[in-house]
Amino acid sequence: GTSQIGGFGAIIDLQKSEYDKANQIVTGIDGVGTKIEIADAMDDYRGIGHDVVGMCVNDILCHCAAPVAFLDYFVCGKLNRRRATEVVKSISEACIQADCSLVGGETAEMPGVYGPNQWDLAGCAIGVRQPDWPQLPETSKIQVGDIVLGISSSGLHSNGFSLVRKILQAHKIDYKATVPWGNSSFGQVLLTPTKIYVRSLLLLMRGGLIKGAAHITGGGITENAIRVLDREAELALDIDASSWPKDELFNWLGSMGPVTTKEMLKTFNCGIGMTLVVSKESAQSVKDALKKCDEKVYEIGKVVRRTTDDLITYQNLENAFDLAKYY
Amino acid sequence: GTSQIGGFGAIIDLQKSEYDKANQIVTGIDGVGTKIEIADAMDDYRGIGHDVVGMCVNDILCHCAAPVAFLDYFVCGKLNRRRATEVVKSISEACIQADCSLVGGETAEMPGVYGPNQWDLAGCAIGVRQPDWPQLPETSKIQVGDIVLGISSSGLHSNGFSLVRKILQAHKIDYKATVPWGNSSFGQVLLTPTKIYVRSLLLLMRGGLIKGAAHITGGGITENAIRVLDREAELALDIDASSWPKDELFNWLGSMGPVTTKEMLKTFNCGIGMTLVVSKESAQSVKDALKKCDEKVYEIGKVVRRTTDDLITYQNLENAFDLAKYY
Repeated sequence: GTSQIGGFGAIIDLQKSEYDKANQIVTGIDGVGTKIEIADAMDDYRGIGHDVVGMCVNDILCHCAAPVAFLDYFVCGKLNRRRATEVVKSISEACIQADCSLVGGETAEMPGVYGPNQWDLAGCAIGVRQPDWPQLPETSKIQVGDIVLGISSSGLHSNGFSLVRKILQAHKIDYKATVPWGNSSFGQVLLTPTKIYVRSLLLLMRGGLIKGAAHITGGGITENAIRVLDREAELALDIDASSWPKDELFNWLGSMGPVTTKEMLKTFNCGIGMTLVVSKESAQSVKDALKKCDEKVYEIGKVVRRTTDDLITYQNLENAFDLAKYY
Repeated sequence: GTSQIGGFGAIIDLQKSEYDKANQIVTGIDGVGTKIEIADAMDDYRGIGHDVVGMCVNDILCHCAAPVAFLDYFVCGKLNRRRATEVVKSISEACIQADCSLVGGETAEMPGVYGPNQWDLAGCAIGVRQPDWPQLPETSKIQVGDIVLGISSSGLHSNGFSLVRKILQAHKIDYKATVPWGNSSFGQVLLTPTKIYVRSLLLLMRGGLIKGAAHITGGGITENAIRVLDREAELALDIDASSWPKDELFNWLGSMGPVTTKEMLKTFNCGIGMTLVVSKESAQSVKDALKKCDEKVYEIGKVVRRTTDDLITYQNLENAFDLAKYY
């Protein structure tokens, strides 16, 4: 349970929570980056709270920690009530999805430092671990033949927006323009809130079915998936870039952008919000369990013996995206 | 101990720390507000990290929590290496003073959202409590006759800067101008880093010598000191506004500003960074112990029976500041 006595700080009472044996705290802080610009352009702040919560809780989840508390930092030049209300509502909803409590926050009005319409959003998630939970990543258990699973993202999540902006600007496309593959606007598609994987993954992690998990954020699959590997072990991830279906957004970005497929995989999550390393034996159970949680999950690669300096290699890069589609 | 495995979140292992029985987490998030503007005007970022750490750890300290970890959020339009380095160095030094570890952070470069020279700084402190430590404020123990102690601040700390800016602007005074009471510039005086009270206060709190502590931030003594009181109890704080010496900065602000003494006490810490409620019997030991820690401490008031709606009353308001001095 949480309470606010006196109100100087938020108190999280582990004794009164289901994690009364917790002996480790796992914590992470993050912002939503330039996704803010698109929320402003669309004047739509109903998802941005999911983004800040998702960025933080998905990170700590990678260490098999149960999120217990979240705090937000909302800063602006002049308080816009509707915006602030939508943001806080979105944060609150996301905290429910992440099974954590919004225990505190700082709302700062800083005229002079911020312009009247300027604002920013960051947050900090606090999770706990019980002594008998696996300490992920279990680098020493990861071995050749292990399977890499990818759980689908809900679009860009909260990374890669500087490149997206460049691509839209280069083609003189407004955020309110309709996407060529549907009826939504680019802004609406880009603002899709970050998926929160806590409820799908935590129990599987606690049950020992997962050896390592990587939240795919800035740096894309290329820079994040490898973070479960021990650099000393001569292992690498071999990923089949054509093994999961791509949202049209990613095909479009790949088609329109002055960006190679390799750069796509190093910038965007490209449809995979979380990668998992699991044993060959557990792969099917993990896939089945995730599907029961309404996750889309794909076998996207395997752990191989590393023969070069690269911790990650790709197969079928040429078929990763449907690049001809939007030319 | 803290470690970063995999690097998605920071792990704080309570089992390996001196707080291996901790069963409560206390946390707070805060920014440094418009003090940033003065740091920019003076191009001096050597203290601003102390401010963000101080704002957060002094808050959680009020609940008798030992800070164990700190995370910062540093955001800018374009990374200025010297500024970023000075800020992080300042945060690190302050974390040492607060006996906590800088376990993580987010450095965000957000061109487009922030101007090239624009930046901001916030942070989150995480503290823990052992089961046998007093849960402050001990509102039910606070009674008529208890003493209110004030520990001196190091200037404005990180609040009240919007009003300070107004006062300086009204008198067309540059931050680089020399103060009338010394050789420093206004900017230097205003940038004095926030005092961190962890080492002076935590052991006294743990020892049961303090019934309540209030970190004096935005809202000044008036709005913060009362936060240790149970609103249902018919108690109030009666403060002698002339009972502690005032830094010349506060005399100057009171003299020059279009601001009454009441407003001064409701905006600035006015020289008191932390107020404590202690029993009559413990007052002397607490004062002695704080003096040994090189704190300046004053008996500034007492707990009285409340007879009006006001949770705080002041004596000697007319002598609180030397208002004639800078006319």
